[in-house]
Amino acid sequence: MASVEYPIEVRELIAELKRLPGVGPRSAERIAVHLLQNRRATPLDLARALESCDSRVKSCGSCGFFAGESTCPVCDEKGRDNKIICVVEQPTDVIPIERSGVYQGLYHCLGGRLAPLDDVRPEDLRIGGLIRRVREVEGMEVILATSSDVEGEATANYLAEALSNINCSVTRLAQGLPAGGGLEFADELTLTRAFEGRRGF
Amino acid sequence: MASVEYPIEVRELIAELKRLPGVGPRSAERIAVHLLQNRRATPLDLARALESCDSRVKSCGSCGFFAGESTCPVCDEKGRDNKIICVVEQPTDVIPIERSGVYQGLYHCLGGRLAPLDDVRPEDLRIGGLIRRVREVEGMEVILATSSDVEGEATANYLAEALSNINCSVTRLAQGLPAGGGLEFADELTLTRAFEGRRGF
Repeated sequence: MASVEYPIEVRELIAELKRLPGVGPRSAERIAVHLLQNRRATPLDLARALESCDSRVKSCGSCGFFAGESTCPVCDEKGRDNKIICVVEQPTDVIPIERSGVYQGLYHCLGGRLAPLDDVRPEDLRIGGLIRRVREVEGMEVILATSSDVEGEATANYLAEALSNINCSVTRLAQGLPAGGGLEFADELTLTRAFEGRRGF
Repeated sequence: MASVEYPIEVRELIAELKRLPGVGPRSAERIAVHLLQNRRATPLDLARALESCDSRVKSCGSCGFFAGESTCPVCDEKGRDNKIICVVEQPTDVIPIERSGVYQGLYHCLGGRLAPLDDVRPEDLRIGGLIRRVREVEGMEVILATSSDVEGEATANYLAEALSNINCSVTRLAQGLPAGGGLEFADELTLTRAFEGRRGF
């Protein structure tokens, strides 16, 4: 007597859930079970939200941020400083910067970062478009805001090199202690960066 | 200048993901971002798996396990011992028992457990159906396999009481040390149960 298993539909749902980041086999099963039998679960609402994201959320042809069919909430916004462009890895990186309110310039979303091991090469990123945009406006500032890990640094270095023969200034976000963070929680590299980047008081 | 936010479709997807068990606001955002921009993400496949579970996976009218329109993989399977019924909280609890291969009887899925604080009362569970099934067959054994936590125990006690005037034997799964687990990892209650339930060697 073979042991009874989940129906094929449930096994397929578990397989799809397992592909999400941070969801292992056990959580995938738990989420599937919740969707199947919790009275408050709304699997069809989730299905519809997925479909509507897939069909309606597009990328801005210029900066790569989420945009409607013909307008981009960043590029088309009045009052932004178009002499400064902040280069981020993903469109989602724009959100925390916008929430901080510290920056009022334009953005350029690369769509990832250089990662030879994952087969992400310069031609896979929106680097050509960045160079075109920087060339268009004389004397732009380009802030490289890729992550401060190895691949983010490598991407920043590559971009700095690619932009070096254009008339623009290239900067990189400061590294140091996080605001509100004590020395006891800082790793060695963060401390090194904080010392290297110390400023007059 | 208001800060730029995710498009409404993405915010709705994040809201739906946040409702899943074990998925907080940060993971919901991370999963949504993955679904939106990872080249290997397949949001439409996930949407279809959800819809197909919703439309095709039903409950067996008798035992409550996942079943097709007219057949149940447990109740309709030849060779099962129909003098013994194992009562579990959820249809998903059937799967680990089946995988263990230790049990060849029938099941009864309650659809939850008594939880007055979450407003789950006896009439919300499939208890009437259980009593009917036990009454139908003379001298049945009913194994109460609800969880060994407070609510599971309360549910088991309630069922034992409800079955007490029917001609059947009621048993409860043994509690004790998990197989392969050393004493150093056992909590006090588990140890107490292991001592109380000790058997001749």
